[in-house]
Amino acid sequence: MKHMQLKRYTDFSLRVLIYLGIHPDEVISINEIARAYDISRNHLLKVVIGLQEQQLIETHRGKHGGMQLAKSPDDINVGEVVKYMEGSSPIVNCREPFCPILPACNLNAVLREAQQSFIHTLQTYTLADLLDGKEEQLVELLRA
Amino acid sequence: MKHMQLKRYTDFSLRVLIYLGIHPDEVISINEIARAYDISRNHLLKVVIGLQEQQLIETHRGKHGGMQLAKSPDDINVGEVVKYMEGSSPIVNCREPFCPILPACNLNAVLREAQQSFIHTLQTYTLADLLDGKEEQLVELLRA
Repeated sequence: MKHMQLKRYTDFSLRVLIYLGIHPDEVISINEIARAYDISRNHLLKVVIGLQEQQLIETHRGKHGGMQLAKSPDDINVGEVVKYMEGSSPIVNCREPFCPILPACNLNAVLREAQQSFIHTLQTYTLADLLDGKEEQLVELLRA
Repeated sequence: MKHMQLKRYTDFSLRVLIYLGIHPDEVISINEIARAYDISRNHLLKVVIGLQEQQLIETHRGKHGGMQLAKSPDDINVGEVVKYMEGSSPIVNCREPFCPILPACNLNAVLREAQQSFIHTLQTYTLADLLDGKEEQLVELLRA
């Protein structure tokens, strides 16, 4: 059964940022990341577009093309990434099937407030916190 | 695409509690709730079992059987219901496909903390808050 879970897309975008974060000053290809995480290239293409839209990565075309972080890991906020990637999807679906109490429902506002608490907690972390002290181990684990 | 969303099961359990909350001192059948929200009886049966396990409802068997709240709406905590219904499902799936950085991943702990903030916010509300000032309008909207 479906449960409270982030989009794959959001999850993968954080994994891409972690990969780029532990390989600073390198231009990394989508293929390399796809191989390291065993994720399809197609899934990653969409993720890369989302990261570009947020100006978190720079991409380089050509034979030795690829991407790198456009900012320091200290300046990449986890909460902002999740918020952007998740969009404004409601946490319950009141429309399918249509819920008759919608016009008088207090639950919506309560759930929205809880979702904001979720994002606020993530906003206290940066990509640097995700890498902190684990860089070497992460490089080792991701060696394809 | 799948996004951050509560289980249908959790959503429906809150809807059942709201229904019972606006019909105090009445024994309500599953069929009545199924009709009011246009939800299948089978889905609701599972929900009712979950609510019974939490001792939030009392059920009565027989021809005029059904259920009613076992506690005052003031004593039914929204966060506790959601926590129980959602279980300990992780908010990202690190196992399928298996994520190679799992042994060194800080993201898990960060997401767990954010999930706790989500629940903590819900824990500041009771069923009474969901009904507050809306009882008449809710009864009207749910008249089958």
